[in-house]
Amino acid sequence: MQWDCQDVCYRRHMARAKKPAKVTKSTARRRAKPARSRADAERELLALAARLSTTAADAEPPPTSLRAALDELLTAYAADGALAAALIEARRGARGDKRASLALAWAREQLRLAIEELLAREAKADRLRAPLALDALAWLVLVAAESVIHEPPAAAVDRTDTLLALVHGPGD
Amino acid sequence: MQWDCQDVCYRRHMARAKKPAKVTKSTARRRAKPARSRADAERELLALAARLSTTAADAEPPPTSLRAALDELLTAYAADGALAAALIEARRGARGDKRASLALAWAREQLRLAIEELLAREAKADRLRAPLALDALAWLVLVAAESVIHEPPAAAVDRTDTLLALVHGPGD
Repeated sequence: MQWDCQDVCYRRHMARAKKPAKVTKSTARRRAKPARSRADAERELLALAARLSTTAADAEPPPTSLRAALDELLTAYAADGALAAALIEARRGARGDKRASLALAWAREQLRLAIEELLAREAKADRLRAPLALDALAWLVLVAAESVIHEPPAAAVDRTDTLLALVHGPGD
Repeated sequence: MQWDCQDVCYRRHMARAKKPAKVTKSTARRRAKPARSRADAERELLALAARLSTTAADAEPPPTSLRAALDELLTAYAADGALAAALIEARRGARGDKRASLALAWAREQLRLAIEELLAREAKADRLRAPLALDALAWLVLVAAESVIHEPPAAAVDRTDTLLALVHGPGD
């Protein structure tokens, strides 16, 4: 009977023992998420930068192509999109992690540079009226795009108009 | 013996039962964090808005007071500050939670309105040169401040200069 009890206890223990194992697994998954999200966030940022660079490389861009490029940029940051979800997780995971923060900052800088290429093209076509240097202006466009994550989607049209007015001057 | 076994199993079960209780407690703490962070984030945003409104209410503000106000705004969003930490958690917790998102968006809008008051004062003093409406300009200043969370602190001086150039025109 002592053996029986041990056996029963053992079986019960094993039946319960599965739960802690499950918790450990899900804990690991929770811990792994920021790193995965960071890879996702970096990939999405670099893909977006590549698309904008392609647009910026057009030999003779029509004046409307900046609006299209800004729309693409703002849409990519929409709150319900893959980039927003990955960025929110990745930024949380990168807090206090210098290497992770630098990796994210590097991918973000590539996007800012792609925006600067777009704006340099506008400057070349003599359509730039902003009272700012190209790098500062590209930074402002980037942070404006990033704000989309925290705002209702309905505001999207106003944002594009605001950025076009900033770049091209009033009455664009 | 059967009773003995039950008793032993029961005691062992109770001894183990404490662990799941602990997990539940820490899980509850983890779940409660976004709500607490949201309250923190809202309080920090509203306190910052109140401070900027007080500055904006100065009867005869010196031309340098906009720089001081922008410095205060950008410093409040520094990556190692209380606002940044609360916002990152709160935004994560508010994802997919419409009510939480709206509460955060409301507090953020109060800050944007306080920035608009600051800029209205600049317009009244005939120091506004931006090619944008006041509400759009206030939004741009706000999103620029928010970017501080994701950037190295060293960039802070450039940001203030960029925003001053945007508001007052080049050569400020």
